[in-house]
Amino acid sequence: MTRKLIILTEGHSNPSTGKTACSVIRYRGEEVVAVLDSTQAGKTAQELFCVGGDIPIVRSVQEAPSANTLLIGIAPTGGKIPAAWRAVILSALSQGLDIVSGLHDFLTDDAQFVAAAAEAGCTLTDVRKNDHRDVARRQGLRPDCLRIHTVGNDCSIGKMVVSIEVAAGLRSRSHDAKFVATGQTGIMVEGDGCPIDCVVADFVSGAAEKLVLQNQEHEILLVEGQGSLAHPSYSAVTLGLLHGCLPHALILCYEAGREMVHGVGHVRIPPLARILQAYETMARLMRPCDVIGIAMNSRTLTPDAAEQERERIRKEFGLPVCDVFRHGADDLVEAVLKFQAETDWQGE
Amino acid sequence: MTRKLIILTEGHSNPSTGKTACSVIRYRGEEVVAVLDSTQAGKTAQELFCVGGDIPIVRSVQEAPSANTLLIGIAPTGGKIPAAWRAVILSALSQGLDIVSGLHDFLTDDAQFVAAAAEAGCTLTDVRKNDHRDVARRQGLRPDCLRIHTVGNDCSIGKMVVSIEVAAGLRSRSHDAKFVATGQTGIMVEGDGCPIDCVVADFVSGAAEKLVLQNQEHEILLVEGQGSLAHPSYSAVTLGLLHGCLPHALILCYEAGREMVHGVGHVRIPPLARILQAYETMARLMRPCDVIGIAMNSRTLTPDAAEQERERIRKEFGLPVCDVFRHGADDLVEAVLKFQAETDWQGE
Repeated sequence: MTRKLIILTEGHSNPSTGKTACSVIRYRGEEVVAVLDSTQAGKTAQELFCVGGDIPIVRSVQEAPSANTLLIGIAPTGGKIPAAWRAVILSALSQGLDIVSGLHDFLTDDAQFVAAAAEAGCTLTDVRKNDHRDVARRQGLRPDCLRIHTVGNDCSIGKMVVSIEVAAGLRSRSHDAKFVATGQTGIMVEGDGCPIDCVVADFVSGAAEKLVLQNQEHEILLVEGQGSLAHPSYSAVTLGLLHGCLPHALILCYEAGREMVHGVGHVRIPPLARILQAYETMARLMRPCDVIGIAMNSRTLTPDAAEQERERIRKEFGLPVCDVFRHGADDLVEAVLKFQAETDWQGE
Repeated sequence: MTRKLIILTEGHSNPSTGKTACSVIRYRGEEVVAVLDSTQAGKTAQELFCVGGDIPIVRSVQEAPSANTLLIGIAPTGGKIPAAWRAVILSALSQGLDIVSGLHDFLTDDAQFVAAAAEAGCTLTDVRKNDHRDVARRQGLRPDCLRIHTVGNDCSIGKMVVSIEVAAGLRSRSHDAKFVATGQTGIMVEGDGCPIDCVVADFVSGAAEKLVLQNQEHEILLVEGQGSLAHPSYSAVTLGLLHGCLPHALILCYEAGREMVHGVGHVRIPPLARILQAYETMARLMRPCDVIGIAMNSRTLTPDAAEQERERIRKEFGLPVCDVFRHGADDLVEAVLKFQAETDWQGE
């Protein structure tokens, strides 16, 4: 049965707090029949998410009768299910919809949801649920599979999008590149991957290593980064993933103009040069590794300001810089191919 | 009821793979009535663990009739319960003993153990079990509580012991110092703490921050480090803890002569100077932080070689260096007090 999605974003229909919705609409738009947000009913996805054309925003599940799956489309700090959404989820179940969630609070651990799903004959899918219990062993890595990892100066700045777009750009040039999803949204988009931030701490690098081992039949892997080494809450996830996927090279993602840490608004983000140095220092504890390009997220800038920013960063770091939405991913695709062709990167 | 411990270390009665046993004997020796290892029965704890005097090594639970609690005394890679031990645990339960475990495989998730404990009226305690679900917020930290964190160049090199000994040394000089346990052995010794390596990755820093918030009525905290920033399997735990407990200063622990990573024996440990730099780089992304002393574990060295090594490291780093067992912890205690008195460390 083809999935027909209605995406729940009640009160969060914007590209920032509704980033899961936004990416599913962007990369799985053909499956999306509606977005559920009673505060915005009557508008279109394009108006609220800047993507999705005339996919309608609706008030209730009943207004999208063709939907067979409710997908929870937000990723709040801490990953908890907003209390007000319980009724919506239960109502969707009673109308026969399957539920897909990427939150830390598992639907399948909730007795009321489990009972309602059983009664309605529906499925509950917790994308983040996992039972990884293997430590990283640093064995079996293919020496000729190129591992590129996107890292960032904060959460929610576009590491997933950059990974997807660079992988797509490489494929369009006839390279066998695979986007390796490490977060709930990436997994919803790609159909496979590992929810790294929900793995027990001792096994984070092991789970990342396993992802590489499972995908290394490809020529080039684009491993989605998580969080930031400079994030007070999530740096454990970032480093475990960095050391587990053992990249040959990094693409550093940042948002122009963002000064304070996402979710910890009183903490300042360190300068980009310090962050770049931190990533190289930590990656190189394991193997040689360079930042080979910078992905700029310039969503808050005017076109002129974006070009000035791009030039400034190019000059400061001497690296290719682009905003994959504004400029396309070509500069980063070429940086990857140049690294692949001209650098002595092979070996574990 | 007073705990009377029999510690299970079957086949692992040595200070390395039996490190949990070793530390419980060292710091909770008055509670230990026997060590269970059928391969070493008849010997004493002193002979096998270099601590514990004439605590006997016995063949079976029956040989220690005063014991009322079986404590699992090893911490293997991955934390799994060795298959052969199931029978021992079940037998202990049938004889009315409570069980305490620090493994990742929870006794309380095992239907057979749960049923056997219920039938015998015994308790199962999983020291690592937790449901931490709070992210770090960087709020509420007392500006005048000094946070010292022990970090290391590898696993199993004595970070816990150094934390305990420095805290004890500070208390003996009338300072209100608290050892803050972050691993299963430390928790068994101290009676409180948080099993950081078993927290879900997104919440590691939050759990560490909570530990600080719960203990900051003390003047000085000695927060036990975990793993190493250079460990291919466990660096996520290390960084999440470092950023969550937000130390003012670090004590760097290392084992003299250890060249290869614990548990990943084909991977070389980076030079100590690089490791020190990595810790300072990462800690300073959050706040000013220096390594103020070095704890040398010289267990494999002769007395002469240990003194040469101490002098070499002192000279290379210009810092106080000692082996807390060989020299006592005074040099590190004084380094902490000097930092407290002479440095402008107060503030978040």
